[in-house]
Amino acid sequence: MYTPQEIQEKIGRPDSERMDQAQQRLDSLTKPRGSLGRLEQIARKIVGITGSLNPSMKNKVIITMAADHGVVNEGVSAYPQEVTAQMVYNFLSGGAAINVLARHVGARVRVADVGVNHDFDSVCDLWHKKIGYGTANMLKGPAMTRNQALQSIHAGIQMVEKMVPEGCEIIGTGDMGIGNTTASSAIAALLCEADVRAVTGRGTGVDDQGLEKKIAVIQKAIQKNRPDKNNGLDVLGKVGGFEIGAIAGLILGAAMHRIPVVIDGFISGAGALIAQSVASQSTQYMLASHCSVEIGHTRILQKLKLAPMFDFDMRLGEGTGAALGIGIAEAAVKILNEMATFDSAGVSKKSE
Amino acid sequence: MYTPQEIQEKIGRPDSERMDQAQQRLDSLTKPRGSLGRLEQIARKIVGITGSLNPSMKNKVIITMAADHGVVNEGVSAYPQEVTAQMVYNFLSGGAAINVLARHVGARVRVADVGVNHDFDSVCDLWHKKIGYGTANMLKGPAMTRNQALQSIHAGIQMVEKMVPEGCEIIGTGDMGIGNTTASSAIAALLCEADVRAVTGRGTGVDDQGLEKKIAVIQKAIQKNRPDKNNGLDVLGKVGGFEIGAIAGLILGAAMHRIPVVIDGFISGAGALIAQSVASQSTQYMLASHCSVEIGHTRILQKLKLAPMFDFDMRLGEGTGAALGIGIAEAAVKILNEMATFDSAGVSKKSE
Repeated sequence: MYTPQEIQEKIGRPDSERMDQAQQRLDSLTKPRGSLGRLEQIARKIVGITGSLNPSMKNKVIITMAADHGVVNEGVSAYPQEVTAQMVYNFLSGGAAINVLARHVGARVRVADVGVNHDFDSVCDLWHKKIGYGTANMLKGPAMTRNQALQSIHAGIQMVEKMVPEGCEIIGTGDMGIGNTTASSAIAALLCEADVRAVTGRGTGVDDQGLEKKIAVIQKAIQKNRPDKNNGLDVLGKVGGFEIGAIAGLILGAAMHRIPVVIDGFISGAGALIAQSVASQSTQYMLASHCSVEIGHTRILQKLKLAPMFDFDMRLGEGTGAALGIGIAEAAVKILNEMATFDSAGVSKKSE
Repeated sequence: MYTPQEIQEKIGRPDSERMDQAQQRLDSLTKPRGSLGRLEQIARKIVGITGSLNPSMKNKVIITMAADHGVVNEGVSAYPQEVTAQMVYNFLSGGAAINVLARHVGARVRVADVGVNHDFDSVCDLWHKKIGYGTANMLKGPAMTRNQALQSIHAGIQMVEKMVPEGCEIIGTGDMGIGNTTASSAIAALLCEADVRAVTGRGTGVDDQGLEKKIAVIQKAIQKNRPDKNNGLDVLGKVGGFEIGAIAGLILGAAMHRIPVVIDGFISGAGALIAQSVASQSTQYMLASHCSVEIGHTRILQKLKLAPMFDFDMRLGEGTGAALGIGIAEAAVKILNEMATFDSAGVSKKSE
């Protein structure tokens, strides 16, 4: 397992020289300068990440990390815990929203069990990386041990290292875990230094009473465990989740290997906060897909200094926002790779 | 040619019964109710438009309408008029942004010459529907005759009627015409009852002085021609453009044939305003793709009562926003068509 320091050392800077060259190329294409707005910015960022002036995006993968949460015993979710495992089977049979949207953008979905409270048969086509049968209840003590926190991050990095030889060119993050908005709100409150109430939403759809209970549970869990807000690993261990740690690892692994990583919504955002806390330069490898309905997500994006691509009032997770974001990232890269220049197309330039 | 009244009569209402059925289906899919936000709304709207509970979206077409504008003689654009024809050739050879983005979403691009100041060889693969060699200079008198205004709308409707037998399932609008932000700002000022300054932007990139000149030209053209702001056809004829009329016709034709039509940016928005003025119920067949950098576009979208799907700071036209919007509309429809239900996937429902 890498230590946080080793991870930090393995993440380089984006290639600013190539980014300048990409800008020159974008400015030579048959369109008014800058008229493709965000698409041009995204293309330039991906050039900086990959170090390639013609980044390819044929091999696209979305990883949906699944795990359970001991805190569901406190009644913080509108759905029973068994839904986590049931949805994993739904992912494997291709019927979930993430399957549909990933197919739409030509991406593969890989599902990882990093801590579901269920035994999956080893023949199931998923990454078997179970760290535990769900976290412990954070109201009673730390959600996981320090070693489990490291293990969850390591699981994400390992997946990237498995995909690198397969030629993976862009990664999308995704999550499944009943109860994981509770863990994510706790992480957001700590790492964004925000009031718990300001970053806690309805998740899959709790009512007013459920929301008050959820806020109280998070507040008490933070009081009980006293996580160090300057230490993402400590926060992850005390109030996080295995899938959130694995998402952080996925992001860190992508940054270590110069692969652009598209961040899904609120849960993935919490994972991104952990990644940022472990290695702040990892944010330069992130592309934020959407802004979630979950009220804490805006704060997370501010802390990450990322502007989301779109806001569709989504709040599903799984990687659904990341899938659509990958489609947009690919469009951006194609603009750079496929458009004609003023010279090659014989189009007159702007009168100066 | 259809009269405005005939067009109005041929546009029915969206199928609200089918929309209710679509909502029931969306609520039965394996996701928290409403958690796919705008995607669900778009899917429901397309069901209402097409009257089909399983709308297909295999045959996607973007029509880029090209024409020139006499008003460019006043120096309102940063590019010379010859660029309109040059860009048409660029579209035909596949090197423009619209070609790249249309390919990305699996849509065909069809280009129409409805009034370019250039003779295209008849072998060119475009719709030859030239109404004139550019409009007249609106500063000196009406941009076109009333008959030309009707002809331009008719050209758009004819294209839809040509595509209906080919099984076209969604249409995107697009434009090319140096000078056409000037015409579009004039239309927006009149039909949105806005101050000219509030709806006039930099187009392809005029400087401060150019912007002041552009505003003055539009104000004078409106004073000179006194268009009737309650009559879109009169507005189109006096300060519009052939491609803008053809876009209005395309939208009206789509509505007449119950085909969803994705509206591009500012110029297409001006066309949509004309369509709305001719037949107000046509807005129910429109999907707004993006919000353009052009300051008048927000006012246009308000007047059309449409919420854009995304805002990428784009200002290129051609149908580039519509192309990305078609990709999103297709994603929405696939959610409806391809996702598993709670029952079929054996997933537990929300605890009540």
